[in-house]
Amino acid sequence: MFADDQLTDDKFLCGRLRLWQPARGYRAATDPVLLAAACPAEPGESVLDLGCGAGAAALCLGARVQDLGLTGLELQPGYAELARRNGERNGISFTVVAGDLRHMPTELRRDFDHVICNPPYYPAGGTPSPISARATAMQVDDVPLADWMAVAARRLRPGGWLTMITGADALPALLGGLGKLGSASVLPLSAREGREAKRVILRARKGGRARFRLLAPFVIHQGAEHSGDREDYTPEANRILRDGGDLSAQFG
Amino acid sequence: MFADDQLTDDKFLCGRLRLWQPARGYRAATDPVLLAAACPAEPGESVLDLGCGAGAAALCLGARVQDLGLTGLELQPGYAELARRNGERNGISFTVVAGDLRHMPTELRRDFDHVICNPPYYPAGGTPSPISARATAMQVDDVPLADWMAVAARRLRPGGWLTMITGADALPALLGGLGKLGSASVLPLSAREGREAKRVILRARKGGRARFRLLAPFVIHQGAEHSGDREDYTPEANRILRDGGDLSAQFG
Repeated sequence: MFADDQLTDDKFLCGRLRLWQPARGYRAATDPVLLAAACPAEPGESVLDLGCGAGAAALCLGARVQDLGLTGLELQPGYAELARRNGERNGISFTVVAGDLRHMPTELRRDFDHVICNPPYYPAGGTPSPISARATAMQVDDVPLADWMAVAARRLRPGGWLTMITGADALPALLGGLGKLGSASVLPLSAREGREAKRVILRARKGGRARFRLLAPFVIHQGAEHSGDREDYTPEANRILRDGGDLSAQFG
Repeated sequence: MFADDQLTDDKFLCGRLRLWQPARGYRAATDPVLLAAACPAEPGESVLDLGCGAGAAALCLGARVQDLGLTGLELQPGYAELARRNGERNGISFTVVAGDLRHMPTELRRDFDHVICNPPYYPAGGTPSPISARATAMQVDDVPLADWMAVAARRLRPGGWLTMITGADALPALLGGLGKLGSASVLPLSAREGREAKRVILRARKGGRARFRLLAPFVIHQGAEHSGDREDYTPEANRILRDGGDLSAQFG
């Protein structure tokens, strides 16, 4: 468990959501916000966040869509506990189970309408952090991406949607791991106009049969270069990251 | 074989290249020009065009890069014959072998520095054309994309490059078929700014170990809508399609 002095109090969605996060270790930034914005969940549906960390993605989704049945699975008990606290703190009903996706806890062996997933990820050429929580959160070799996807697919009802965010360099593994997931779309995330994508969001449907689509990139920052400390989000990124909007127009 | 009155005389690269093509059946448009522009061949290197059709891609490449050893493999003898004629007509040395990639002709069982490939392709939901040559050229079920790629990989020297163009909806099969090909990059081709990609160019290296890259889209047309018959290529597309430039900046 984390002691309170190991935590920071972070604002998401312009402060509509406040999350305790470990000061050191894996810290959510824009990825879980974009992931939540890409999930097509509707009020009353059930959502499983596989590897939910401190709960940023699930709680961003809960802040946007009412009456979801939100459940999180998290390997590290310290993060699972934080995710529960963060749900309570924000008044969002969020059931968090500490457990290993390779040995799915019994209470999660049921169907969900949606699975969202921001799997741990090493940037190419990166090395494990010396901090143990971070090392676990960033450890990809441990559980291959295809296993995350197979577990997600098993937890989806027929016609249910997986929404996932990964590094763009994981795209071959991501598309290679589709299995019974179809109707897949990839949204490239580009830091600036004309730059190669460093991250991608995949959306795919269990049993879907529509053709694969490679969407136009979603551009996060305006201009060709970073301009000092000034926030330079594009209007579209502001609509997601600050105003809590969704990415349905992009997946159209 | 095609009779002369079954052929049209078509200009490529602003007329720098002139190709006989069947009036009916598979006709090259911008795809082989873009494919040739993406191949990083240098003077003196050997290039195999798998499924070369009437030779558009190989000959566009030969028009840009001097002293290549250009070889084509084509299943349909009529197209192979046309490809030979087109090579002679443009003064580009081009050896064309009629044969089936699933039973590689003996004279092609050697290593190449580059393989280029514009495999036959049905748009999703398309139906076979009633015209037999077109039906063969568009028949994808016959030879899966992974087989095209495995054959290409076998023909490459270690460190040699495969450059391939396909429909964007084939991206999962394309990335699933990489096998021993690494250092892969995908260049999305988008008709207009902000549109989803309908075609993609893959570049991958035999034995390559660099991370996968999803590049910024290459945009073909200017403006948001088609404006009558007026040619509306972007400056970058003009540089490739009219001036015979290459895509090396895009693959950077």
